[in-house]
Amino acid sequence: MSDQPSITAAELAHRLGGTFKGDGTRVIRAVATLEQAGPDTLSWIGSPDFLPRASKSKAGVLLVTEECSLPTDRTVIHVADPDVAVCEVLEYLAPPPDRVPPGVHPTAIVSPNAVVESTAIGAHAYVGPGTTVGAGTQIYPGVYVGARTTIGRDCVLWPNVVVRERVTIGDRVVIHPNATVGADGFGYLQRDGRHRKIPQIGTVVVEDDVEIGANSAIDRARSGVTRIGRGTKIDNLVQIGHNVDIDEDCIIIAQCGIAGSSSLRRNVMLGGQVGIIDHLRIGNGVQIAAKSMATSDIPDGRVVRGNPATDNRRFLREQASVRKFPGWVERLRTLTRRVQRLEEKVGDTPNEAT
Amino acid sequence: MSDQPSITAAELAHRLGGTFKGDGTRVIRAVATLEQAGPDTLSWIGSPDFLPRASKSKAGVLLVTEECSLPTDRTVIHVADPDVAVCEVLEYLAPPPDRVPPGVHPTAIVSPNAVVESTAIGAHAYVGPGTTVGAGTQIYPGVYVGARTTIGRDCVLWPNVVVRERVTIGDRVVIHPNATVGADGFGYLQRDGRHRKIPQIGTVVVEDDVEIGANSAIDRARSGVTRIGRGTKIDNLVQIGHNVDIDEDCIIIAQCGIAGSSSLRRNVMLGGQVGIIDHLRIGNGVQIAAKSMATSDIPDGRVVRGNPATDNRRFLREQASVRKFPGWVERLRTLTRRVQRLEEKVGDTPNEAT
Amino acid sequence: MSDQPSITAAELAHRLGGTFKGDGTRVIRAVATLEQAGPDTLSWIGSPDFLPRASKSKAGVLLVTEECSLPTDRTVIHVADPDVAVCEVLEYLAPPPDRVPPGVHPTAIVSPNAVVESTAIGAHAYVGPGTTVGAGTQIYPGVYVGARTTIGRDCVLWPNVVVRERVTIGDRVVIHPNATVGADGFGYLQRDGRHRKIPQIGTVVVEDDVEIGANSAIDRARSGVTRIGRGTKIDNLVQIGHNVDIDEDCIIIAQCGIAGSSSLRRNVMLGGQVGIIDHLRIGNGVQIAAKSMATSDIPDGRVVRGNPATDNRRFLREQASVRKFPGWVERLRTLTRRVQRLEEKVGDTPNEAT
Repeated sequence: MSDQPSITAAELAHRLGGTFKGDGTRVIRAVATLEQAGPDTLSWIGSPDFLPRASKSKAGVLLVTEECSLPTDRTVIHVADPDVAVCEVLEYLAPPPDRVPPGVHPTAIVSPNAVVESTAIGAHAYVGPGTTVGAGTQIYPGVYVGARTTIGRDCVLWPNVVVRERVTIGDRVVIHPNATVGADGFGYLQRDGRHRKIPQIGTVVVEDDVEIGANSAIDRARSGVTRIGRGTKIDNLVQIGHNVDIDEDCIIIAQCGIAGSSSLRRNVMLGGQVGIIDHLRIGNGVQIAAKSMATSDIPDGRVVRGNPATDNRRFLREQASVRKFPGWVERLRTLTRRVQRLEEKVGDTPNEAT
Repeated sequence: MSDQPSITAAELAHRLGGTFKGDGTRVIRAVATLEQAGPDTLSWIGSPDFLPRASKSKAGVLLVTEECSLPTDRTVIHVADPDVAVCEVLEYLAPPPDRVPPGVHPTAIVSPNAVVESTAIGAHAYVGPGTTVGAGTQIYPGVYVGARTTIGRDCVLWPNVVVRERVTIGDRVVIHPNATVGADGFGYLQRDGRHRKIPQIGTVVVEDDVEIGANSAIDRARSGVTRIGRGTKIDNLVQIGHNVDIDEDCIIIAQCGIAGSSSLRRNVMLGGQVGIIDHLRIGNGVQIAAKSMATSDIPDGRVVRGNPATDNRRFLREQASVRKFPGWVERLRTLTRRVQRLEEKVGDTPNEAT
Repeated sequence: MSDQPSITAAELAHRLGGTFKGDGTRVIRAVATLEQAGPDTLSWIGSPDFLPRASKSKAGVLLVTEECSLPTDRTVIHVADPDVAVCEVLEYLAPPPDRVPPGVHPTAIVSPNAVVESTAIGAHAYVGPGTTVGAGTQIYPGVYVGARTTIGRDCVLWPNVVVRERVTIGDRVVIHPNATVGADGFGYLQRDGRHRKIPQIGTVVVEDDVEIGANSAIDRARSGVTRIGRGTKIDNLVQIGHNVDIDEDCIIIAQCGIAGSSSLRRNVMLGGQVGIIDHLRIGNGVQIAAKSMATSDIPDGRVVRGNPATDNRRFLREQASVRKFPGWVERLRTLTRRVQRLEEKVGDTPNEAT
């Protein structure tokens, strides 16, 4: 990759506001874990737990805390928070970004009734009538934005994203390729074995700083809104049902599904492939382990696992007990024989068989 | 939302063919559940079970059955079936729809060999040679319809839907954004550790009144057809494998996966994230709880749950018994000690250890 | 389907290099299983296990091994490997394919800086600057290929596929509709309850002969590469996280999710809806049953199942034991009563209650 930027250890320490020890002329071209790093690679030690692994690492430069001391043969940069600093390093090393060129591409269809402050509308994009697109927002090729929708400032809509009509998207929202926002919720009335569609006349509100993963789907409300709160991050292939209300700063890993009208309060974290049935309340700070299914409300702060999701430690204890069960069956058999011997010896005849 | 329609209680009662009591001038702008409804909102009581919650509801107007009696200070509309009536109300309150403008958009590519009765083909859509699109069907921007495919009347293909070649779609079918119909089935022949592709030369038949959710994928058959029966409703992110046969009026919630050649008979209901392995028969009226996995045929009418899916009550009983297992281990330990005391007293020496 | 090709049994035997017995003039128009085949259909017997079912089959022609003997009233074709031969038959019977017409469609946007050897770029496709597309590759309508990406020879990118910038795709790779390759990995740094995006500056390498299913998503690496090894086949709606390394000839069925930095070695087979948490090593030849979740490394050659995934036989034994648990509780109760009788008879008073 000839377009890969690089930076020296000394220059990097300067930019990060840190101090370096060792060889300041060392060139860094990549970032990797301690195990995978090579001579032109930077790695980092965010916690003292990783110190033992650092000695074996081939990383050319190590980002460490201010207190951390390592053998003098290593080139290190001391910073206040190595985890944060490594994010900055990744930005310095990022190849030139693939931005939408300025202007509205001649093949894009932008309604004359749309209010487009953005000057980055890609090829074959579509922006419907009555729709607003804020300044600094990039609309990549093949994106569809329906009528009377509002897209805020400095958003990125990657290629082939679909945002349907009357949806509201805040500022700095990133929507990854092939994601769908605002499709009809899934609601039918059962009458005589047939399914009558319940109109889905509501909408979706995506607040500031949200990120929505590739091929994810967020349905519009039956009536009212489906809401994704400020700062919430949603991974790929996630399903958000109609009238779901997700509060601020949640993390939702790939392939989760949240059914209609359920609510996640602040700072909820869902592992991958989690399911949440409809009309539940998942409390503040709840963590649900990957592949679990929530079937009832979960109070604030709980860490849960399993199907149905239950207290994490309880789940692990139950799992362990299931593994022991075949052994206990054997013990019960043995004990039964001992009791039988005793009965024979004592001359007792049980009036019930085991 | 300035484009939100409204209606008075008296006018609504008239349109629904019902009778109203209370304030006929009340204006309704939205529909919500009893708990969430406010003064300009209509709610409904579909069953007497909800009556207690109605007294606390702030809903301005309540849709109720003909027999239902509520305190005289409420504005109510009596109708034969409140659940059906609320669907009509949602239609009255729906903002003007975001229809594809009449005509074939100049940027759409429609093969000269296609037979397009529809006059609503959106920007950047593609319709291949030998393909038919029926009257009243709306093809949104970015849709791809391959060669020799048939799309019926009054269908809606939302933006960026892909329907590949030689597929048959019935009338009044709705396909939500980014869904894929007719991609190759997943079939390989294993020889010497490598995978040779088995050609997928069949097709897909989607019958009348089917709905297919956003980002769902329905594979074409290896040979023959993958079939989605009349009236079946499929939610988002669902996977339907090759040669699957789904009969009429099924409901398939988000993120289900149905493997190759399996069959769902009529009125099957699958909860979210259900898996069905290949070559199974899921009988008429079967219900499978969310996140379950079917690994064997399921007879007509069963309600099942778990992995592997088993009778719902049996599953719940087994789950409950697992929760009790740690307690029973303790009881077995205690009983073992009692037997040992007895053995010591009686002078019996077991010839096997527990 | 008037465009359905057909072939006689004699001609087919000739093309397959086999020998036929029976009626060489029989016309074959389709391929189906023994149960579903009719008079103009070919079926096949890949293993002697299927012989009993062959007698009841209505198939007009049967593909069988060289040793296989069937009643003389059947028309059969003897070949070395019927499973391989049936793949060839499907190719002969395939309707004319729906190829992208030669040339760059006038509505396609191909950067003047792109190097496009392919002469099959469909309508509304986009190819970014610095990107290479090899000879024989078909780019269907609506496909987006970002800047500085390399697509090899003889690939197929079905409609509305998105491949982002700086990705490398090998030769003969097939990517099905609406799939996404190279979106940002999902990485955030938690600070004060907020989530700071970790730049995802790496890329994706898809090696030769890989197939990627419809609506699947393969994320780019944080730094370095996400790799899909030669010959690996990925089904629909699959999630591959950042920095995942998948080796050659793996099979990944629909809706699997593989979290960041995990690694699959050669010939791994994942059933549908499997989850693999981050940073695991799944060894050579491992098979994981559908809907299982791997939470720790799995050594070479293991067959595992469950959540957490464990040895397949052990899982089945544990499942069976759970089903028996309610019965064992009853036995323990009975045994407790017998011990109590003994204690009464012997005059023993336990100093602990059960």
